[in-house]
Amino acid sequence: MTAPRIGVIGGGQLARMMQPAAINLGIHLRVLAQSPTDSAAQVIPDTVLGAHDDLAALKAFAAECDIVTFDHEHVPTEYLVELQEMGVQVRPGPHALQYAQDKLDMRAKLSQAGIPCPEWAEITSDADLDRFSAIVGYPLVLKTARGGYDGKGVWVVDDRDEALRVIKEIVASNTRVLAEELVPFTRELAAQVARSPQGQCVAYPVVQSLQTNGICHEVISPAPNLSDERATSAQEIAIKIAAALDVTGMLAVELFDTGERIVVNELAMRPHNSGHWSMDGAVTSQFENHLRAIADWPLGSPAAKAPLSIMVNLLGGDLGDLHLAFRHVMARDPQIKVHLYGKDVRPGRKIGHVNLIGSNIDDLKERAWHAANYLTGVIDE
Amino acid sequence: MTAPRIGVIGGGQLARMMQPAAINLGIHLRVLAQSPTDSAAQVIPDTVLGAHDDLAALKAFAAECDIVTFDHEHVPTEYLVELQEMGVQVRPGPHALQYAQDKLDMRAKLSQAGIPCPEWAEITSDADLDRFSAIVGYPLVLKTARGGYDGKGVWVVDDRDEALRVIKEIVASNTRVLAEELVPFTRELAAQVARSPQGQCVAYPVVQSLQTNGICHEVISPAPNLSDERATSAQEIAIKIAAALDVTGMLAVELFDTGERIVVNELAMRPHNSGHWSMDGAVTSQFENHLRAIADWPLGSPAAKAPLSIMVNLLGGDLGDLHLAFRHVMARDPQIKVHLYGKDVRPGRKIGHVNLIGSNIDDLKERAWHAANYLTGVIDE
Repeated sequence: MTAPRIGVIGGGQLARMMQPAAINLGIHLRVLAQSPTDSAAQVIPDTVLGAHDDLAALKAFAAECDIVTFDHEHVPTEYLVELQEMGVQVRPGPHALQYAQDKLDMRAKLSQAGIPCPEWAEITSDADLDRFSAIVGYPLVLKTARGGYDGKGVWVVDDRDEALRVIKEIVASNTRVLAEELVPFTRELAAQVARSPQGQCVAYPVVQSLQTNGICHEVISPAPNLSDERATSAQEIAIKIAAALDVTGMLAVELFDTGERIVVNELAMRPHNSGHWSMDGAVTSQFENHLRAIADWPLGSPAAKAPLSIMVNLLGGDLGDLHLAFRHVMARDPQIKVHLYGKDVRPGRKIGHVNLIGSNIDDLKERAWHAANYLTGVIDE
Repeated sequence: MTAPRIGVIGGGQLARMMQPAAINLGIHLRVLAQSPTDSAAQVIPDTVLGAHDDLAALKAFAAECDIVTFDHEHVPTEYLVELQEMGVQVRPGPHALQYAQDKLDMRAKLSQAGIPCPEWAEITSDADLDRFSAIVGYPLVLKTARGGYDGKGVWVVDDRDEALRVIKEIVASNTRVLAEELVPFTRELAAQVARSPQGQCVAYPVVQSLQTNGICHEVISPAPNLSDERATSAQEIAIKIAAALDVTGMLAVELFDTGERIVVNELAMRPHNSGHWSMDGAVTSQFENHLRAIADWPLGSPAAKAPLSIMVNLLGGDLGDLHLAFRHVMARDPQIKVHLYGKDVRPGRKIGHVNLIGSNIDDLKERAWHAANYLTGVIDE
């Protein structure tokens, strides 16, 4: 049967979690992984070893694919242009991906498109810093334009001296400096959409996400106490960004909610941690819709299967062997869905997540956090 | 991480559909397939080629496994005993599997355990046939004790002459002859349970299944218009059989419903077509619970996620390329879940299924059958 041959660059857990969806859809996945023990390489037979920043490896990999997509956003866009010139469909394309790679480009593009952002400026001199701090005051936020993730590459600075030290550090790492106001948010939200090349777009319920040390830890779908009006507004922002940037596949828009306004924090152009709940809680998971979107097939319903879904990440802790704790967790709660990534446990590393669906938020939180804490060794009873 | 290494004998779609569940649970699956193009071999990296009736191949395969299970029930039980003697856990074990392999042994065992069965007898002579037909009359049912599946190995005979011809044919194929009354059933039901070695057992909702030419075609969960009392009775029958036969893993009990009584038709000791709805409609799919059961982990909730689920099989038809029809089916109904097995299309062959959840039975039937008929070329609008 002639499904497109889809290549995924990067062998992390996002590529791994595309495989169940691909199996159901009859899609042959191929993955470019660094090592045969990579999370995705363990479960995808057609694994090719190579680096995502090695042009020759990318070309050899893509030559056997109809469509290429990503586990992460780190492939140099100029390499992706070369893959396009080979006749391979790159989705999302480099013209979109650049805005997920460079936060300054992203801020400029979103501001131009009328998307609500925090106050921001590029900092190229002490004078730039002083001009910007005069507007937003201290503390303010400094970011590397490129290369940050999971809380890395982001600093909250309290005064001018600290700001100058951080700026010097960023410049030394050879990337541009983005300054942003410190948004007084009361919580973080995320709006996810899937968009296909022909422009079909579906919006998932807007979720609330809770970070620990800059790493996503808990997601609740839909976000509690969010009015329909504000939820729709967040979905519209995500749809507008997907269209303005011509994103194909999944787009996650991370948002700050101040209680009065919603502004865009970050973008991710791939399946995203804020959508893992959809594996058990939505009619169509984000991984299936990512594949359908990049194959330019009609998209699946993003509707929830239950009034509420919760996801709690498993962040590596003291327990080296998660399966030792399986029996307890599974026996305590037959409805808990455990998802493991086949990764060695290291402190703070995302090694899996648990999902749970239901209708009572307090009940779901207690149960999902108990399972996650038990599996990671935070609690032992 | 130390999950058990689970080996699946047979590379068909049931082994294939265990892989998404194994990926989530962090279980390494290994499959013994006939060919690298087998349904499961396409999606499981650790594929070993070999035949299920080749003892040397089975031993080499099992040597790298902690637990061995099955895609089908055709492995000779004496070979499984040899695997057990190597120290490998065989689940279900040969002592249980024999009753899925031999319908005469099954009838004898179930009758002994007080399970409601059709009237039955072994036929070893013309006199046996006459004695039995005097009790149940013609037409009656003749079956090969071994080797039948999907309607093959079953005959409804109208008179003595036809019966004698069929008996001669069965005896020539070197298996024993089972005669059964022709149960005047109004519909077929199936009751599925998962059972672990330590004896934990969970029961799925009792479903209604519709056969075409002896092949399962449609399953509705839960079975419409089935009283709680009768549903519970069907679940109790399945639980009782699982315990009496010491089944581990999934057990499917196919039942005839006459409107007045429920009797057991066939058994399957593995994930079964009547449980494919659970992939999208239950908290825990039959494939996940099969793996949890044979790993002796606590079982997951078999509860439904929606008031109703429907599954319709894709039986090979005129359309050689199912993906050509994907766009239409997916665009017409964003809630349809298509599951393909990666198999070449041959007339009447099971090549996939569609699932749909909802609350209105007529609506679900119309939509699921439209999708299945369109995908298989029965209709083109």
